[in-house]
Parts: sequence; structure tokens; C-alpha cells
Amino acid sequence: MNYYPKTIQNLIECYNKLPSIGKKTAERLALATLNLDQNVIDLFTKSLIDSKQKIKKCSKCNNYCEKEFCDICLDDMRDSKILCVVEDPKNIILFERLGIFKGKYHVLDALISPLEDISPEDINLEKLIKRVDSEDIKEIVLALKPSIEGETTSLYISKILKDKDVLVTKIAHGVPLGADIDYVDSLTLELALENRKEISD
Amino acid sequence: MNYYPKTIQNLIECYNKLPSIGKKTAERLALATLNLDQNVIDLFTKSLIDSKQKIKKCSKCNNYCEKEFCDICLDDMRDSKILCVVEDPKNIILFERLGIFKGKYHVLDALISPLEDISPEDINLEKLIKRVDSEDIKEIVLALKPSIEGETTSLYISKILKDKDVLVTKIAHGVPLGADIDYVDSLTLELALENRKEISD
Repeated sequence: MNYYPKTIQNLIECYNKLPSIGKKTAERLALATLNLDQNVIDLFTKSLIDSKQKIKKCSKCNNYCEKEFCDICLDDMRDSKILCVVEDPKNIILFERLGIFKGKYHVLDALISPLEDISPEDINLEKLIKRVDSEDIKEIVLALKPSIEGETTSLYISKILKDKDVLVTKIAHGVPLGADIDYVDSLTLELALENRKEISD
Repeated sequence: MNYYPKTIQNLIECYNKLPSIGKKTAERLALATLNLDQNVIDLFTKSLIDSKQKIKKCSKCNNYCEKEFCDICLDDMRDSKILCVVEDPKNIILFERLGIFKGKYHVLDALISPLEDISPEDINLEKLIKRVDSEDIKEIVLALKPSIEGETTSLYISKILKDKDVLVTKIAHGVPLGADIDYVDSLTLELALENRKEISD
């Protein structure tokens, strides 16, 4: 039996479609929605409609944008010679918050995964190769997650770009700062040991 | 600096207005919203608009409804002689899920709280008294939370209904089933001791 009026039931159903929002949380959010101000509701509905109509992928790097190119690609102050390759647009935000990377980005949208039947053709690689061929790019920094899929993708990209005049690098993996070495997984520890560096004065 | 396109920023801001949704979760939900199907987005926007335009309070019991009266008040199969008084419409759902209460409800919308400057006039009491006077009500079951505000409100209601021909009862407070007695707070334990019952065969 449904105890709530139809509108509240619909709200619960919609919130429930979002990741990690269960039935109980969806119910709580739906009831809280009833108490939102009219201007918040207006902005919310407008943004939802816009999310389908306005949000596109940048024609160059595949980041989210509302025009043909994203703000980062359009920014002439940034270094076009260095590209950071990430899996997801939200990874860009992490680097942007850090504020030290001044190059541009390229979003793959997925990683090569034979298990999930994602082959190199299914990820946004063709555009990356075109960019390397047509733009004056000196370095590609691969910033993919340190999983089997991430490593496979990194390896694949470094192979297809081998013959081109571009340096392919990868962000370092190792023991994170502040982490207790006891709790670091063995694969990370192995990588950290492999990539050990001489201590300079 | 804002790293996301305006629409995504707006979505983050709206989700962030909901209780217990922080900046990080709001960001995650906003990005997940971009992947929702068009029909979910349509239902979501419609429900948000309806939440302001259609959802009203039942003229009789103050429960959420979309017409003048809520489904429970309109249900002739239910016992109109017994009213369960709750603080919030969502408390009704708890009882309805239980499925054993067959009477009707009355929602107060708040509890008397001198600290928060909520006096008896600020809660939905006048309508309750009118209902007792005009309807054939035999029993009022107070199901308010066992806090100072809840107890004050229960006491106040029982006092103003004292001279009327209606039985006022209160749901039992005590040690919850399955709870370890070690972890039950002292006030609950005191109530449980006070309300002890003879064991019948």
C-alpha cells in the first residue's frame, strides 16, 4: 500500500534512482523537499531540465561544458603543450582544486576492461591521437586509477603513442602521505618499493 | 573558482540545501543526475513543481494530501472513534506500515517548547479540540516522542481534554525489545520501572 500522496511517492522514486540513496534516505529527502523555498524549487527544476538540454561534452577534451568547448580548453593562459589524461570529468576538478597543474586535459570517459567488454575503441582515444597529431603537444601525463583497468589503459596509450614525438608519463603511485604503512595494501607497497628514489641532500 | 558549468553548480547548490547532504555528496548527486534517463528527469521536475503546487495539508487531520482531505480521513472502513495524535505526517507512515492501528490520525506539526518559543497556540491543537467537540471520538492516543517537549505536549493535551467525554491515553515507553539493558538510558529505565506490569499466566 502507498501511504504518501502521488507527488511525494514520485519524489521518493526519483531520489531513489540516485547512487547510494536508499528507500529510507529517498523518503527523508522527499519530505525535506516539501520544505524547500519556492526559489530553490525553481532553480532545482530549471537545473534538472538544463542538465539534459545544456550540458554537453567539450568537442576537444570531452569535459562537461555548456558551449562547444569547455572553459579550460578555451583558456589561452594555460599550457597547451601538456595534456593530463583522466578517466572522468570529475577527476579534472581534483587537479583544478590542487591548482598546480597548468596544462590542459583529456577525458577518456572509461577505461579499457576486457572483463566488462570495454575495448580501446569504446573509450575516447581516437580524439586523443588526433590531438597529438594536430596540436603541438610535448607531454601526455596519464592520471588514471591504479587498478588493472587503469594500468592496462595506461600501457595501451603509451604503446600507441610510442612512435609519435610526445613524452608519455604517469603520475606516481606509492604510500600516501599520512598513511600508516601497516595498512597500505601489498600492491601499493610493491609499487612504492619498485619506484624508490635516492635521497638527495 | 568554479570548475563546473553553471548548470552543474546549480544542481550541487540545490542538493546541498537538503538536510544531511554536504558539499561532497551534493557534487556526487549532481554528477549522477547527468546520467539519469530523460523520463526520470521529467518525473523529477514535474514532482518538484507539484510539491509546491499540489501538496496540501488535510483540512481535517493535517496529514499531507493532494485534495481537501487525506485518504485516511476519507476511508470509511477506519474507526473514526479513535484518534492517534502524532507530531509529524511521517509518523503516520510508521503506524500505517505496522498495519495494526485502524483508527484515524491528527498531526500537530510541532510540539510545545518554551525553549524554542513554541506555545500551545502554535501547534495544531485548536482543530483537535474542534474534532473532539464535533466528531464522535471516544479515545485519543498520544504518540509523541518521549522528550521534554513530547511529555509537555502530552500533559497539556490531557489537561485541556480532561472535562470532555474522551479517554486520553499515551503509547507505552520502556525498554525496547532486543535492546541490551546496559545501553538503555536512565530516563527510559526509570519509565520502564515505573510502568512495570504484573506477569500474567
